[in-house]
Amino acid sequence: MTSDKYPSRLLENAVEAISSLPGVGSRSALRLALHLLKQPRENVHHFTQAIDRLADEVKYCRECMMLSDDDLCQICSDGRRDHRQICVVESVRDVMSIEVTGQFHGVYHVLGGIISPISGVGPSDLNIRQLLERLQRLTGEETPEAIRHGMDGPRIPSAPEVEVILALSGDVEGETTAFYIYRQIAPLGIKVSTLARGLGFGDDLEYADALTLGRSIVNRQLFKP
Amino acid sequence: MTSDKYPSRLLENAVEAISSLPGVGSRSALRLALHLLKQPRENVHHFTQAIDRLADEVKYCRECMMLSDDDLCQICSDGRRDHRQICVVESVRDVMSIEVTGQFHGVYHVLGGIISPISGVGPSDLNIRQLLERLQRLTGEETPEAIRHGMDGPRIPSAPEVEVILALSGDVEGETTAFYIYRQIAPLGIKVSTLARGLGFGDDLEYADALTLGRSIVNRQLFKP
Repeated sequence: MTSDKYPSRLLENAVEAISSLPGVGSRSALRLALHLLKQPRENVHHFTQAIDRLADEVKYCRECMMLSDDDLCQICSDGRRDHRQICVVESVRDVMSIEVTGQFHGVYHVLGGIISPISGVGPSDLNIRQLLERLQRLTGEETPEAIRHGMDGPRIPSAPEVEVILALSGDVEGETTAFYIYRQIAPLGIKVSTLARGLGFGDDLEYADALTLGRSIVNRQLFKP
Repeated sequence: MTSDKYPSRLLENAVEAISSLPGVGSRSALRLALHLLKQPRENVHHFTQAIDRLADEVKYCRECMMLSDDDLCQICSDGRRDHRQICVVESVRDVMSIEVTGQFHGVYHVLGGIISPISGVGPSDLNIRQLLERLQRLTGEETPEAIRHGMDGPRIPSAPEVEVILALSGDVEGETTAFYIYRQIAPLGIKVSTLARGLGFGDDLEYADALTLGRSIVNRQLFKP
C-alpha cells in the first residue's frame, strides 16, 4: 500500500487535508473522505465550491469589520440600531452569539483576534486602529463643541454619549486586550464598559470558581422579584 | 442579518455544505468555516483541491474493487499474497483495518456496501456479481477437472483450494449479506468461512452480551498456554 497505510495517494492527500481542520483526527478524516467518495460527484463539487467561494469572495464591513456580503454589513446599515453604542468583540462568532440573545441594540466592532504574545498576535494585527478612527469620527462629527471641551456651561441634553462595550473573554488575553484598548480610548473621554461577570443562570454555587463567585458577591445587585 | 442567523450568504452556504458531512453539526460547521476563513487562501484551495481530485480521479481495482491509484491495486498485484484466499468485506475501511492487523496474507473483495432493505440497498447494488465472476475465473482456470468433478480417484495434492472468508459485521445486515453470498457461492463448491465471534481480548465477561458469550462457549478453543 502507498505509505503502508492508504490504498491510494488521492485518498491519502484528501485525508491529510481534512485532518488539518481543528478537532478532526486522521480517523475522522478518513471516515469523512470515504463518505465524500460515496456521494455523487456534483455534491462533492458543491461542497468544495461553497468553501472556495467563501475564501475567495468574502467581504468585511468597512465600518465594523464584520463578515458581510456588502460594503456595509446589515447591522451597520440598520437605522434602528444605536450607532453610538459600540460593542467590541474578538470574532464574527461573538457577534453571532450576542445577536442571538436579542439584548443588544447597538453596533459592533470585530477585532479579528485577541492580543496574545504567546501566539505572536500584537495590537497591530487586530482592527484596533480602525476602532480608534471610528471613534474619532463619531466623537468629532456629532458632538457639539460645547460638550466636547466645555465644563463651563450647563451640559446640554443631546444625542446619547458614545459608549464602548468591551465584550471580550474573561481570560488573561481577553483582559490584556481590554486593558490595551481602554488605554487607547481613555484620551477620547468616551464611556467604556465591560460585560458583567458572575454566576451563570442555573449555575451551582458549590461548583463556581472562587474568582467568579467573589466577583458575584462584590458586584451583587438589588434583588428584583 | 441574512436569514436572521448568518451575517453573510457565503458563510451560510459554506456552513450548510460543511454540516452535510456526517457527524458535523451546524455549530462545528460554523467553527470550521470560520477557521478556514482565517487561513491563507492557498491553503483553502489546497484543501478543496485534494477533495475534488479524490472525487474526480479515484479509481477502483478491477479485480477486488478496492480504491487504487492503478488498474490493479497494490495488494492484487503483490505476488507474495495468496490469491486463492479472498476476504470479502463491506468497505475500503475494512480492508485497511484488516491490513493493520498484519494477520491476513490473502487478497480482498470489496462489496461497496451491505444488503439493507431499509436503506434500499439490494444485492445488485453491491460488487457481488464481480465476486462470482472472479471465483468462476479462479476455479475454472486453475483447478484440474479431476478435482472439480471427481470423487473417483484419490485427491491429488495441488494448489491450495480457493477459500472465501466472509468478513462482514455481526449485525442483521451483515448476516443477511453473508447468507446471500454463501448461497451464491455454494454451487461452486468453494470453501466459505467467516470471522470468529467471541469475547474480545480484554473484554469483561460480566458486560458481554448473551449472544456473544453464548457463541464464545459453543465455539470454545483448546487452551494453549
